[in-house]
Amino acid sequence: MNAPDKLNQALSLTREPFPASTKTYAQGSRPDIRVPQRVVALSNGESITLYDTSGPYTDPTADIDVRRGLPDVRSAWVEARGDTEAYAGRAPVPLDDGRDGERLLLELRAQAAALQRTPRRAVAGAKVTQMHYARRGIVTPEMEFVALRENLKREWMDEYGSDAEREQRLRGNPMGALLPRIVTPEWVRDEVARGRAIIPANINHTELEPMAIGRNFLVKVNANIGNSAVTSSIEDEVEKLVWAIRWGADNVMDLSTGKNIHTTRDWIVRNSPVPIGTVPIYQALEKVGGVAEDLTWAIYRDTLIEQAEQGVDYFTIHAGLRLPFVPMTARRRTGIVSRGGSILAKWCIAHHKENFLYTHFEEICEIMAAYDVSFSLGDGLRPGCLADANDEAQFAELRTLGELTKIAWKHDVQTMIEGPGHVPMHMIQANMDEQIKHCHEAPFYTLGPLTIDISPGYDHIASAIGAAMIGWMGTAMLCYVTPKEHLGLPNRDDVKQGLIAYKIAAHAADVAKGHPGARERDDALSKARFEFRWHDQFNLSLDPDTARLFHDETLPKESSKVAHFCSMCGPKFCSMKISQEVRDYSAQLEADAGMLAKSEEFKRAGSEIYIPISKA
Amino acid sequence: MNAPDKLNQALSLTREPFPASTKTYAQGSRPDIRVPQRVVALSNGESITLYDTSGPYTDPTADIDVRRGLPDVRSAWVEARGDTEAYAGRAPVPLDDGRDGERLLLELRAQAAALQRTPRRAVAGAKVTQMHYARRGIVTPEMEFVALRENLKREWMDEYGSDAEREQRLRGNPMGALLPRIVTPEWVRDEVARGRAIIPANINHTELEPMAIGRNFLVKVNANIGNSAVTSSIEDEVEKLVWAIRWGADNVMDLSTGKNIHTTRDWIVRNSPVPIGTVPIYQALEKVGGVAEDLTWAIYRDTLIEQAEQGVDYFTIHAGLRLPFVPMTARRRTGIVSRGGSILAKWCIAHHKENFLYTHFEEICEIMAAYDVSFSLGDGLRPGCLADANDEAQFAELRTLGELTKIAWKHDVQTMIEGPGHVPMHMIQANMDEQIKHCHEAPFYTLGPLTIDISPGYDHIASAIGAAMIGWMGTAMLCYVTPKEHLGLPNRDDVKQGLIAYKIAAHAADVAKGHPGARERDDALSKARFEFRWHDQFNLSLDPDTARLFHDETLPKESSKVAHFCSMCGPKFCSMKISQEVRDYSAQLEADAGMLAKSEEFKRAGSEIYIPISKA
Repeated sequence: MNAPDKLNQALSLTREPFPASTKTYAQGSRPDIRVPQRVVALSNGESITLYDTSGPYTDPTADIDVRRGLPDVRSAWVEARGDTEAYAGRAPVPLDDGRDGERLLLELRAQAAALQRTPRRAVAGAKVTQMHYARRGIVTPEMEFVALRENLKREWMDEYGSDAEREQRLRGNPMGALLPRIVTPEWVRDEVARGRAIIPANINHTELEPMAIGRNFLVKVNANIGNSAVTSSIEDEVEKLVWAIRWGADNVMDLSTGKNIHTTRDWIVRNSPVPIGTVPIYQALEKVGGVAEDLTWAIYRDTLIEQAEQGVDYFTIHAGLRLPFVPMTARRRTGIVSRGGSILAKWCIAHHKENFLYTHFEEICEIMAAYDVSFSLGDGLRPGCLADANDEAQFAELRTLGELTKIAWKHDVQTMIEGPGHVPMHMIQANMDEQIKHCHEAPFYTLGPLTIDISPGYDHIASAIGAAMIGWMGTAMLCYVTPKEHLGLPNRDDVKQGLIAYKIAAHAADVAKGHPGARERDDALSKARFEFRWHDQFNLSLDPDTARLFHDETLPKESSKVAHFCSMCGPKFCSMKISQEVRDYSAQLEADAGMLAKSEEFKRAGSEIYIPISKA
Repeated sequence: MNAPDKLNQALSLTREPFPASTKTYAQGSRPDIRVPQRVVALSNGESITLYDTSGPYTDPTADIDVRRGLPDVRSAWVEARGDTEAYAGRAPVPLDDGRDGERLLLELRAQAAALQRTPRRAVAGAKVTQMHYARRGIVTPEMEFVALRENLKREWMDEYGSDAEREQRLRGNPMGALLPRIVTPEWVRDEVARGRAIIPANINHTELEPMAIGRNFLVKVNANIGNSAVTSSIEDEVEKLVWAIRWGADNVMDLSTGKNIHTTRDWIVRNSPVPIGTVPIYQALEKVGGVAEDLTWAIYRDTLIEQAEQGVDYFTIHAGLRLPFVPMTARRRTGIVSRGGSILAKWCIAHHKENFLYTHFEEICEIMAAYDVSFSLGDGLRPGCLADANDEAQFAELRTLGELTKIAWKHDVQTMIEGPGHVPMHMIQANMDEQIKHCHEAPFYTLGPLTIDISPGYDHIASAIGAAMIGWMGTAMLCYVTPKEHLGLPNRDDVKQGLIAYKIAAHAADVAKGHPGARERDDALSKARFEFRWHDQFNLSLDPDTARLFHDETLPKESSKVAHFCSMCGPKFCSMKISQEVRDYSAQLEADAGMLAKSEEFKRAGSEIYIPISKA
């Protein structure tokens, strides 16, 4: 079996729709704006509509072939704007796949042949970013797509529950976020225009289902995948991509550092409905054989163009790590832990020169603007342990990222800011405050933060605590941490564990902020729980498979799934059942009270028609 | 093989000390005050001393036989006070093990024979609680034990790291907690005297290694075990106890609801070095065949005495669930979810009478005072979903618990207060504020809270987020939640998963509060990480086994554990390695600057001896 067939076979495992779920599409103002949603049918006839990141893979009618890539979503939108041109593109060289590129299996490249696209770029002098359009008052199809996507639960919410419940759902503490009742395309445009949200959407990533990252939108989750020098393969990475979006990854970063970097990215971008981010310095480093001091602006620039043509939606660029900040890390307990940060620090000290990403920043902006690649301004000096949190080095870099944000915005380039790392709970708010203050509300995108250092093997949990808190405080996207953090590369199950932990954190943040509609799924699940609709309870869970499995470990029989008890208390006694009796009792009390009142009324009126039942 | 042999064999699996760890004992002012500690030896010659909940099980020299129970720690302390008497005790009846008690295997009871102890109680008119002694200015051996136990890391901390690091470690936001530099026995006494801390320590639980629960002490974790009508056995429960304390449970509650309740408890208490809590209404309900309305004060009272004689250290008593509050739950989404709460609500509405635990509260206090059983005043009306959080019913009960606290304190009975449940992040602070305000700083003991409802199978994570936050805000003990919450009864691995998640939450809270010494282990682990001491990194982890396993999945060879790289970046490039180069660079810069300064100085002095190297 050759690799792609293995791939398609493996992928078929994860193409099943979620239980009781149907893929539907919300229709926009034009036929080709079709926003994916997952509708969960409940056993009581109700249904719940959920935000859906899983792409065509969970649509049984979709014709998927990873050798050809996903269907085109956006080409017509991009071309209709009339400000881009198709061109031959940069000629690929063996080094694109690393020093071993010469020896790269010809077979692999041949298999990627059908994944090649003719790249587009802005015509001379044009900027083709969503920010550019937004600032000119234009609502793009991407913006409308985002509005429909963010909005879908709000409308449903209006019909659900009592007035008091609706009011309670709307409460929350937005911590400064502005959460409109309904997300309109114009609201999306205005948020993008002022830089408070980004829509990562490279014009060459035409398979993309657009999404937004911003403090006033739902909190998003990023999953990192990628091979390394030590382990994993292209097949693994595509499989991880499909797996990651199944479990809710809103964005995926390809952090490959091993061989076949270019070809791996072809597979990933062409098969991804979510934005793909990269750290271009990783590939540039491979091109110079792993010797940081041999990096040059020319090699880096060429790598940016190579990746922009492939359709990468955002680049992590550590341009804020300036030479004067490097010595600030010398007394740290764990120095520089960002891989990109340490590559650049090494370059800076080897040459005793300012970071070339800082000195060439305006040129980088021009490239980004020509493809609509968004900045993810990297935090190369993020703390790698509690002892180093919120120190001089971290905040010096953060302030520089704020300055660079202004330059990026001058070029209409969409920008978000990366954040830590390892931060104890009591220092998290200061991170958010500093970021908002110095980075002008550009979206914050944090790794965790981990709230303790002593939980290797469980850092997805230690960091989900910090992630939930900073998400509530205003972080727009949370970069997941898997159980393998600090120990090894995540496998398929680690990716899932990391994602579920981060979907929990993001959702907890949305609920706490009081995002309209965010709590609908919780309320529906709790109602199902109270009414012993076990299947609905499973199907509304973040991970229906595991919920069902855990229940069945104790009570495997199908009859238990409609039974009015569970394994915790057993069949003789159930607190949920008693609650129903309390309701009956209270209704009786109220009826009695009502009758008593009526009776008193009639007495006063000289009548004696009603006698309260309880007194009868 | 009979049951106890199976038991001992199973237990031998979990008697291994942690890797590189030695059980030591801190010696108190008298020979029989020996406080267990775990000392982790590091490969660089340093060592770290850790708080140790695992009891004699991890001491290879201890002679453990679960049929006889653990060695006596406290009898001499209790007897020396001269205010208690041994007595025949209540005569056991078959019903103690439930309606099926008659049919209980004689073998089981016979095997528990060596676990029987002659109970003690206060002599007539005496109160024998730690609060009683504390209020009279007496420092008990229990208080000294607690002081040594809480304190151990603080002394070590003084010698560790630079001045700046020590200062940074001491920072934190205690959120109103008072954290002394050194915990003295007198401080413990004063905290117990004013009710701000409890030392759950039934005079009949002589195997106990005393510990404290209070806002100004380290945050503690409780694990629930117990059989149910549907599943599990005595062997399972003792095994879970030993397993739970191995992974850091400071307290264990036996929530058994099935058969053999009395005998199971004999096994658990006699083999537990940590305080054991129960919910006596569970056993009382078994005695009336599961029919809540058949409960009587006489049956309940008898159950309290039965359990107090066995040595249970704290009772969850839902005395704050008053009849008028029951109808407040009628409009809730999930009604009453506390098992104890619903039993009492059912009793109240069936009889249309006030809760008999409320009406008999002073009598209950008298029993508690005669054995030093602590109150864990139950939150029978805790919210079972986000929609019900912080509602009228919950807070009405909480205020009543505050009133009952005052009555308990009048009787010198130690008291803590149970809290929710399901609470979104933005409502957690209000819970803590209300508790402190209405319950006079009596320790708060919360279940989670869960911050979302949609994560069955992962509720240990959703609740660890809330637990970390409320722990930081002032909660003294966190009741763990396992991945099986809402779905089934936890097995051995679920217990461990729940505990690790909660040790993370508790530790994150201690660090955020700025507990002196709390961060030592983090700092040591991060240093080991930076210096590529992989074994030390594993051994300092909350779960060394898993950390090692995860590392070995990618790099199994022993040589990789001293290698200066890991699987994330591979051998060619490592950010940690570059950080060392940054240090060298900065040292050179400083040396240069120093030389330059010297050179300038000499120049000013007319000398030209030094020429800076970099200029040379």
